[in-house]
Amino acid sequence: MEKTSKSKNAAIIIIGNEILSGRTQDVNLVCISNWLNKLGVTVNEVRVIPDIEDKIIKSIRDLKENFDYIFTTGGIGPTHDDITSESVSKALNLKYEFNKEAFELLEKHYGTKEFNQARQKMAKMPENSSLIKNPSSGAPGFYVENVFCLPGVPIILKAMLGELSNKITGGKPVLSKVINLKTLESKIAVQLEKIQENHQEVEIGSYPYFKSGKLGVSIVMRSKEELLIDKCKKDILILAEGEKIELVNFD
Amino acid sequence: MEKTSKSKNAAIIIIGNEILSGRTQDVNLVCISNWLNKLGVTVNEVRVIPDIEDKIIKSIRDLKENFDYIFTTGGIGPTHDDITSESVSKALNLKYEFNKEAFELLEKHYGTKEFNQARQKMAKMPENSSLIKNPSSGAPGFYVENVFCLPGVPIILKAMLGELSNKITGGKPVLSKVINLKTLESKIAVQLEKIQENHQEVEIGSYPYFKSGKLGVSIVMRSKEELLIDKCKKDILILAEGEKIELVNFD
Repeated sequence: MEKTSKSKNAAIIIIGNEILSGRTQDVNLVCISNWLNKLGVTVNEVRVIPDIEDKIIKSIRDLKENFDYIFTTGGIGPTHDDITSESVSKALNLKYEFNKEAFELLEKHYGTKEFNQARQKMAKMPENSSLIKNPSSGAPGFYVENVFCLPGVPIILKAMLGELSNKITGGKPVLSKVINLKTLESKIAVQLEKIQENHQEVEIGSYPYFKSGKLGVSIVMRSKEELLIDKCKKDILILAEGEKIELVNFD
Repeated sequence: MEKTSKSKNAAIIIIGNEILSGRTQDVNLVCISNWLNKLGVTVNEVRVIPDIEDKIIKSIRDLKENFDYIFTTGGIGPTHDDITSESVSKALNLKYEFNKEAFELLEKHYGTKEFNQARQKMAKMPENSSLIKNPSSGAPGFYVENVFCLPGVPIILKAMLGELSNKITGGKPVLSKVINLKTLESKIAVQLEKIQENHQEVEIGSYPYFKSGKLGVSIVMRSKEELLIDKCKKDILILAEGEKIELVNFD
């Protein structure tokens, strides 16, 4: 994956029984990954784990050393099954305590009278955390060391990423171009492998598709250098022409 | 998670750069997990990893000993980036070789003349693999030991699960019931935690929702015993009545 130096990578830990059970379709992976791509950070691993403290701690510790950034989603709300903040504290051997800024922000949001025990819980996080402000509701996320903790509700998560962009130092963004061919993978596989060998700096992915009842193959070329993608693309277009394969444009 | 004995659990390894990059929305997790639920198998971990041999081998080895079943999706097609079968062979220290049944099946499907090198690759798998037949196209999946390898294309994967149901020995299925409340999590969190303490055999999840512009909380109760869910549900309904919280029915 890492074709050039100075790449930055990330892992995402999706915390939530509702995702694992199949009850809820995760959409945060796509959202975070696309956002990070633009910042020049590549997501190289995702784990979906249950709301169990040991599992959260193990995943954080497993991934923390091997990735520049760790993102967690879910489990920072006020209910009993929201255990991410406390688990992250334990994983990093940091105190789990009230964050003064979060406490004041939430107290102001709810009003002193309505700022009950459950809502106060949302102000507890690992010591020395910085807040990730939440424009759509009161409760903030936080980051500490290289671990960024976001909520699970997609609409709120998405709103919080904007706030976060200037906190992420990425490399050169990975660019991608797609060619859709009206063919079968097995008809072009051998030639495509040769093209991949000749363009080692471009990652070529081949994905069969079924769209509007039609079969085809999407060839995705990814690299940080547009020029290299274009050279690779040229060779794929030559292959298509040679094999009389029709190009399909979805746009 | 494991509230009763004799539970069976599974992990899913989603192999594919296109999922990690955010280009393609995974839907196979939901599909496999819902199918396994009905068979009495609980998915307790999912990993999404790139098409890199070392990563596939590491994930298989990490998870194999701790789960009854491992499912992989993606990477069993004919192109250069399809490396799942060979990587699984290496992870399990098994020979990567032609499977006679798969070879004959694919040769028959394509016809001897059209059965080219790329297509033949789809007949290579770990020694002693059993086939998972594919009703929608020629190429089969396979299973060996406790590792089940499925394709990444959702429509094909779904068609193959039916074939597989009688190969999975599950426990008692986990049942779930949902109550939707027109309230905020932070208003009921403390009482809900007490209900969870009084119903330890039921896993209670609390999930805020936004539907048709309305805020609410879905309370999901999961257990293998319907009676226990119903007892828990009763207490949540008492809580709702006491707090004058409106129930919402989406069906």
